[in-house]
Amino acid sequence: MKKVAIVMGSDSDLGVLTPAIDKLKSFSIPHEVRVISAHRTPLQAIEFASKAEENGFGVIIAAAGKAAHLAGVLAGNTTLPVIGIPVKASVLDGMDALLATVQMPSGIPVATVAIDGSANAAILAAQILALSDENLASELKKMREKMTSDVVEKDKKIKAQFE
Amino acid sequence: MKKVAIVMGSDSDLGVLTPAIDKLKSFSIPHEVRVISAHRTPLQAIEFASKAEENGFGVIIAAAGKAAHLAGVLAGNTTLPVIGIPVKASVLDGMDALLATVQMPSGIPVATVAIDGSANAAILAAQILALSDENLASELKKMREKMTSDVVEKDKKIKAQFE
Amino acid sequence: MKKVAIVMGSDSDLGVLTPAIDKLKSFSIPHEVRVISAHRTPLQAIEFASKAEENGFGVIIAAAGKAAHLAGVLAGNTTLPVIGIPVKASVLDGMDALLATVQMPSGIPVATVAIDGSANAAILAAQILALSDENLASELKKMREKMTSDVVEKDKKIKAQFE
Amino acid sequence: MKKVAIVMGSDSDLGVLTPAIDKLKSFSIPHEVRVISAHRTPLQAIEFASKAEENGFGVIIAAAGKAAHLAGVLAGNTTLPVIGIPVKASVLDGMDALLATVQMPSGIPVATVAIDGSANAAILAAQILALSDENLASELKKMREKMTSDVVEKDKKIKAQFE
Amino acid sequence: MKKVAIVMGSDSDLGVLTPAIDKLKSFSIPHEVRVISAHRTPLQAIEFASKAEENGFGVIIAAAGKAAHLAGVLAGNTTLPVIGIPVKASVLDGMDALLATVQMPSGIPVATVAIDGSANAAILAAQILALSDENLASELKKMREKMTSDVVEKDKKIKAQFE
Amino acid sequence: MKKVAIVMGSDSDLGVLTPAIDKLKSFSIPHEVRVISAHRTPLQAIEFASKAEENGFGVIIAAAGKAAHLAGVLAGNTTLPVIGIPVKASVLDGMDALLATVQMPSGIPVATVAIDGSANAAILAAQILALSDENLASELKKMREKMTSDVVEKDKKIKAQFE
Amino acid sequence: MKKVAIVMGSDSDLGVLTPAIDKLKSFSIPHEVRVISAHRTPLQAIEFASKAEENGFGVIIAAAGKAAHLAGVLAGNTTLPVIGIPVKASVLDGMDALLATVQMPSGIPVATVAIDGSANAAILAAQILALSDENLASELKKMREKMTSDVVEKDKKIKAQFE
Amino acid sequence: MKKVAIVMGSDSDLGVLTPAIDKLKSFSIPHEVRVISAHRTPLQAIEFASKAEENGFGVIIAAAGKAAHLAGVLAGNTTLPVIGIPVKASVLDGMDALLATVQMPSGIPVATVAIDGSANAAILAAQILALSDENLASELKKMREKMTSDVVEKDKKIKAQFE
Repeated sequence: MKKVAIVMGSDSDLGVLTPAIDKLKSFSIPHEVRVISAHRTPLQAIEFASKAEENGFGVIIAAAGKAAHLAGVLAGNTTLPVIGIPVKASVLDGMDALLATVQMPSGIPVATVAIDGSANAAILAAQILALSDENLASELKKMREKMTSDVVEKDKKIKAQFE
Repeated sequence: MKKVAIVMGSDSDLGVLTPAIDKLKSFSIPHEVRVISAHRTPLQAIEFASKAEENGFGVIIAAAGKAAHLAGVLAGNTTLPVIGIPVKASVLDGMDALLATVQMPSGIPVATVAIDGSANAAILAAQILALSDENLASELKKMREKMTSDVVEKDKKIKAQFE
Repeated sequence: MKKVAIVMGSDSDLGVLTPAIDKLKSFSIPHEVRVISAHRTPLQAIEFASKAEENGFGVIIAAAGKAAHLAGVLAGNTTLPVIGIPVKASVLDGMDALLATVQMPSGIPVATVAIDGSANAAILAAQILALSDENLASELKKMREKMTSDVVEKDKKIKAQFE
Repeated sequence: MKKVAIVMGSDSDLGVLTPAIDKLKSFSIPHEVRVISAHRTPLQAIEFASKAEENGFGVIIAAAGKAAHLAGVLAGNTTLPVIGIPVKASVLDGMDALLATVQMPSGIPVATVAIDGSANAAILAAQILALSDENLASELKKMREKMTSDVVEKDKKIKAQFE
Repeated sequence: MKKVAIVMGSDSDLGVLTPAIDKLKSFSIPHEVRVISAHRTPLQAIEFASKAEENGFGVIIAAAGKAAHLAGVLAGNTTLPVIGIPVKASVLDGMDALLATVQMPSGIPVATVAIDGSANAAILAAQILALSDENLASELKKMREKMTSDVVEKDKKIKAQFE
Repeated sequence: MKKVAIVMGSDSDLGVLTPAIDKLKSFSIPHEVRVISAHRTPLQAIEFASKAEENGFGVIIAAAGKAAHLAGVLAGNTTLPVIGIPVKASVLDGMDALLATVQMPSGIPVATVAIDGSANAAILAAQILALSDENLASELKKMREKMTSDVVEKDKKIKAQFE
Repeated sequence: MKKVAIVMGSDSDLGVLTPAIDKLKSFSIPHEVRVISAHRTPLQAIEFASKAEENGFGVIIAAAGKAAHLAGVLAGNTTLPVIGIPVKASVLDGMDALLATVQMPSGIPVATVAIDGSANAAILAAQILALSDENLASELKKMREKMTSDVVEKDKKIKAQFE
Repeated sequence: MKKVAIVMGSDSDLGVLTPAIDKLKSFSIPHEVRVISAHRTPLQAIEFASKAEENGFGVIIAAAGKAAHLAGVLAGNTTLPVIGIPVKASVLDGMDALLATVQMPSGIPVATVAIDGSANAAILAAQILALSDENLASELKKMREKMTSDVVEKDKKIKAQFE
């Protein structure tokens, strides 16, 4: 199976990324966790992205805060799908990171998830890889069924509690 | 090759979606263009999404404005990757649609692109399908090289113009 | 009397909904409290809404955060009045939920109250039911008179305190 | 049947309210159209609201722009359900009117619809009145079915157009 | 001297108003502190405002949060200058109160100060009254000179600290 | 009677200020119209403000756009009441000017009116001057009564039109 | 004298940059106008920035819209001062570009000017170069005096017009 | 070497400015730390700015919150480059200070850095002074290399941790 890269702009973003890492582990998706900065290690960013495909990656997840350029810079140097996680890292509640991640110019998309939406980034990566991996597709369906039955269970409990 | 669905919440969004349709055509990606409303045809929305995989779709692109629920509703009924295009359709410049599309709860991601970012939605779909299609991957690289050489060309021209 | 449904998208919203539940109890309005997710249990959402009328409900209150689709999805599957409570559940202070709840497309209204405005949702439900229930109408007038006299009382106290 | 009041803060809002008036007519709901300003005719506002119930009104729709106090002032003087339409009337795209309408304090709800969402205000009023009027309830279901079949029709057309 | 009224929409706003009360005391400006709600005691609001002039008031300061209608309602019932203090009382950081206070329609101004800007409301009231009170005008100039010399003092201290 | 100064940061703001000038004329309030820039003519700004009182002014109205410092700079150099009009002069709809005008630090208030709210600035100035001018106070009450009767007239007309 | 680079992310930004180019010409500052895209020509961006100093540049002005990464990417590859112009290029009024340009992480500053503030970017570049160029410093002072006298002139004219 | 001035509008901003002071020290750049208020000590502000050049300053850094006029007022009285730091000092998360600092009118630029972006203001000042100081330019390059190698180091560590 192709690998998923989880790239953070700063090691202070590691906490936000833990749910994504855990999700990939739970799906047994091979992955690599990296710290690469669009501004402090720009050459590493370009090199990583431009060699990602030949290095066996299928999807890149990039998380960054403030003027969050990381996902965009990686997307500009690969044609692999790049998923962007805007991180709340300033006083502006992550709105700066959201706009800097999602409002990409025509030609270079970044698949943006919610602010600090780390688990969803991993699930989206899994959904992409599952297009050519039946086992993974089946795992995703099981996870979805589990989510549904969890809500149904909670519904029963709460409904009874207020009857 | 798997098909791409382009779903709009209202036929008034067709203009915004034309660049996406054109891109898919230019990549020779089979596609279907649909009008399905999360609110007006909810059963159709669920049926379309839940049968999308068995009907041969690989990626769903959903475009909607205002309280843009379409992408989220489709994503809640399939484990295929769903790409959301927030459409500027109210007085609020599309910010309502952006937040309603991107801020999905944990478990159900929507891969969100820029407001009215229709071409990028199609390119992202192509990047996803290209993971298991070498011809398409090669087409995407050519398109990228073309984009690069176009900018280089314009750079030369503008540089000369102001020398 | 017709019942009021209080539906939350996640059981983590229960705290926000407690004032609504308490208000309905204080008015002796029959009610049911449910956990139904627009994204995780979409079929349950549709089934609940489309059968709400025949199951004796008169008003549906729906609370959800982030890309808050719950109220809109329920409203799309019933012609009962649906009241939406946008919940502050992300880093964006509930503005995402407000816009995702209130900016509904033409044809499918959601009666939106303030962010986390749970008590007002219950009062609005009571006002609606009171149109055909004189006792309830009378209760609402008493509550309003009590609110007025409470403020008048506080006014006297504060006025005296600073004289 | 109880009447619906459509109250605007300024006669310049009449254009925005036309879809609401038309909807009420199409449902044969008796209604009155009024110009009452929370700031310029405050006594009239209070008198209208406090006598609305005895004058045969069941629902009040109030539309105002900028620091839109009209719906809130009416709601503070009646226990009938009040529906607020925030109107885009300033340079701020109606966001001022939305917040001034929806963010009501506890005790005095305003059922807020989308900015300039006039048709939905009328449909919501109809849904409320339909709770005790089977003909109207049936009309609402027909309207909904018509909306659904319209979208299905457009879907067929667009789908065919791009095949 | 004419009196200044300090009116709050809820007694929970008292903390925010303490600096205003203290300022008025320090200027020996006669004042009254009141709790009057635009929504819960609308008749009291109108009566207070419409009799404020004959009751010896010269300026009204009104503080309210969320859909802050209090200043506007008072302003609509008097031709005395009304100063509005938007209060941060919801999850929206006071932006809702700011827009609901400042964006008044033509004809009914509210002199708006900063969110939670209670001291400035009192100073503004003093500046207005000082137009016909030389002692107060002189007090205001002294306060300003004190402010200036305080900053000059701090400047010396900080400058020295980092030399 | 004391004079009112109308100061604009740029002569391009003259159009926005015309309603203010007209209002002052209609009240026969003596006034001076000036162009003074906080940034381009800072010495003139300080000189104007610090001599305004001795030059016979009672109120200063200042209008500016973008990073609208004019009202604040004038307020910092006088203890006369300063009224600020935020002007929509950039792509940001006047929100930049509103925040730069209203969010003044403690000690230096600016009485802020709505974005482009020029007429209200003049009315507020008149309300302030009317505290020591019975004729003007009487004019203001007449204007208010005229406003009320205009709305009542329009109400009658619209009410009849839709009966 | 060191050169100033004016770099735009797309040749569609040329109109916005014309005032900057004209200002540099009027100061006789040598300059180069370039089209370089952070996303479409990332290697050219890095090469340009990392060689800018040895190629005789002293200041880099970068203009881009939407998720405006250009200034940040250039700043990450040089220690020359980089001035960023956020361009209004989307439906979001340039707020996306402003936040993506100004909210840079610690270590890599971008000197940001107003949205579409092209003339100011050139003046700022001139101010920087003038630190080691007395003629240019003198030119800047003359320009400033001209600005001042222009406002004084307009002030006289407007003041007379309304006397 | 020319000096850098660090000016704060209030001594409560000192904490935010500490990283800037530390950075200047680490570069051995001579500097002065001042408290000058645009509103409380306007004459001092003008005098400081207009004499800054002859007093040996090369760059002015100005930090202020809320309606942050300080940087703009200083910029209006000097042709030295002025760097503005918007400070989060109100309930509005610094957005008020950002807009009041960056949205300067044509002719008077302020080089704005991120909200509370104090270290970057000092680095930008150093970059400006380094244009005529080879040692400082060399220091900046070393700092950048250190930043790069720090990230590379962290990357190795995190990568290994998750292998």
